[in-house]
Amino acid sequence: MDDYRIFNFNAGPAAMPVKVLKQIQSSFLNFRGSGMSITEISHRSALFDDVINDAVERAKRLLKLDDRFHVLFLQGGASMQFAMIPMNFLADEDTADYVNTGTWSTKAINEALIQKKNIRVAGSSEDRNFTYIPGNIEFSKKAKFVHLTSNNTIRGTQFHEFPDTGGIPIVCDMCSDIFSRPLDMDRFGMIYAGAQKNLGPSGTCMVIIRNDMLDMECDNLPTMLRYSTYAEKNSMYNTPPCFGIYTIGLVLKWLEEDMGGLESMEEYNARKAALLYDYIDSGNFYRGTAEKSSRSLMNITFRLPDENLEKAFVAEAEKNGLGGLKGHRSVGGCRASVYNATTMEAVRALIEFMHSFEKENRS
Amino acid sequence: MDDYRIFNFNAGPAAMPVKVLKQIQSSFLNFRGSGMSITEISHRSALFDDVINDAVERAKRLLKLDDRFHVLFLQGGASMQFAMIPMNFLADEDTADYVNTGTWSTKAINEALIQKKNIRVAGSSEDRNFTYIPGNIEFSKKAKFVHLTSNNTIRGTQFHEFPDTGGIPIVCDMCSDIFSRPLDMDRFGMIYAGAQKNLGPSGTCMVIIRNDMLDMECDNLPTMLRYSTYAEKNSMYNTPPCFGIYTIGLVLKWLEEDMGGLESMEEYNARKAALLYDYIDSGNFYRGTAEKSSRSLMNITFRLPDENLEKAFVAEAEKNGLGGLKGHRSVGGCRASVYNATTMEAVRALIEFMHSFEKENRS
Repeated sequence: MDDYRIFNFNAGPAAMPVKVLKQIQSSFLNFRGSGMSITEISHRSALFDDVINDAVERAKRLLKLDDRFHVLFLQGGASMQFAMIPMNFLADEDTADYVNTGTWSTKAINEALIQKKNIRVAGSSEDRNFTYIPGNIEFSKKAKFVHLTSNNTIRGTQFHEFPDTGGIPIVCDMCSDIFSRPLDMDRFGMIYAGAQKNLGPSGTCMVIIRNDMLDMECDNLPTMLRYSTYAEKNSMYNTPPCFGIYTIGLVLKWLEEDMGGLESMEEYNARKAALLYDYIDSGNFYRGTAEKSSRSLMNITFRLPDENLEKAFVAEAEKNGLGGLKGHRSVGGCRASVYNATTMEAVRALIEFMHSFEKENRS
Repeated sequence: MDDYRIFNFNAGPAAMPVKVLKQIQSSFLNFRGSGMSITEISHRSALFDDVINDAVERAKRLLKLDDRFHVLFLQGGASMQFAMIPMNFLADEDTADYVNTGTWSTKAINEALIQKKNIRVAGSSEDRNFTYIPGNIEFSKKAKFVHLTSNNTIRGTQFHEFPDTGGIPIVCDMCSDIFSRPLDMDRFGMIYAGAQKNLGPSGTCMVIIRNDMLDMECDNLPTMLRYSTYAEKNSMYNTPPCFGIYTIGLVLKWLEEDMGGLESMEEYNARKAALLYDYIDSGNFYRGTAEKSSRSLMNITFRLPDENLEKAFVAEAEKNGLGGLKGHRSVGGCRASVYNATTMEAVRALIEFMHSFEKENRS
């Protein structure tokens, strides 16, 4: 019973590598021989320095970051970043370009508008219900940054290539695909992600920021709302979310040492998604909701012939040990989130279930 | 080895009840039969609703809160609250009174000043190096709130009675003594505490706020920086720090069911502290740093005859399985933090060690 595990397709918080969970569990009362739990050690100890520095170094190695970049741990999720980004980078006379590819992009835009910042929506896929990634976007040369959402968890779309911004730094919400593939980090001034999809538990937000973005910081901001506060103190101006940082470090270690880094992680993720999309496309009972060229490798959204069947599908799946397949409440339908930690075994089990559900319910 | 535990006197993150740690550990791979870890379940699930609602209800029962109060879970620690408090409650024409009893009060004051808010330092113990709690403070009738730090972790002082504010709501940083004693909540408009001392792991900040404080909220604030965002959505506007909330719930359950609530917790805390202070006062080798009437029941600060002895004391203690006895780096000396989860057994072991250390090192 204690080891019973389902196949978890939650959109976030989401499946984590079982190996990592077992590591946390086995040393939970006595972390590295300290006689304390990871939740009980001082963040000012050499023991915790090792934890946070290891997580930072692994992130740097995985993404091949040079010394311009800082790996920071903040709190408040991506939603807090939506507020902090315009607050830090846009003075009164400045402007930025945002691309609107769904719910989270819209929220990021709204937080800039609440602060009466000058921003422009340079591209949008709202015209076709956010089912695609817009192309041929023209960015303003005056923009201090371009804000993108790399992967749209709710709509199941993803930037497979990042647009040419003419050298303007991209600030990118990567909540649902960070560390799922290699990145050309020269394009990015800042990337950020709440941990609860590809990185660890909710409550920690990773921010990777380049020096020139820190230089843009506006004056007179509250200490906890300035990126430089975190960059100057290795994320420890005040007590950081220690358990989250520890867990992220273990996930990155797994990614580096067990999964072989981002190239092979991407290849594995592509194979998982292809298997599922191919199955969906092979008949007409299931129907993908995103335009094919914009399909996400992380969140596979689909519909069944009607809503009652969708309800039955989610409920039946759960009875069969397949959890988290309900689509986001704002759009309905079904969704299988297949982040890094979701195994091929889980995807195969899902396809098998989809197959038998279709057989039983095809009219 | 896996069960090796020290006596942990850390100031925060700090000792947690072993029973709680074991509960987390035993169900870490399969939380309540879900086949998922607590870090993997959706915050939009009935399972998590139970977790957060249970934590809220326990907090309400323990503090005897009526329906005016909301129990919220935020992120960013108390330091984020230092910024949010003036941001939410002070419009341009408003003013507030702050009492300065040490490092954290000073930081709270600074965050109001950064935002150019009108505040007044109504009382301070800076004149005698923050070694006491000021009395006879005169508050301005115009103040929208009075800000206090109930317990000063670094200096080892504590408000044993809260000052008469003439009905002005107290907004109180209770990081290091929340749930350590009963409170007359009629006095407070808001209390807040980072979890990592008396409540659970770092990364979650509990805020208990009264309706009339929410009504004071300023316009045009970013969504994540408004208290009403959390009050309206049961702390789930976005993904909350699920593991932290879960752990806080377990700690509150332990407090309610094992320790018998706040009256008996206070009595236990008073006995632990008395034992230690009595021992310190019984000779002249150890010397308490706080004035006697202001002494904290949570953080017991003391000096030895010289700094070399203090270094040796901390190092020797650690070798003997007594951790976290170094004073805060800003003030030096020694400190034993004896929060709710610190046992009488730990205090007795510390006194025994202090006794033998004195015998060996008295000149």
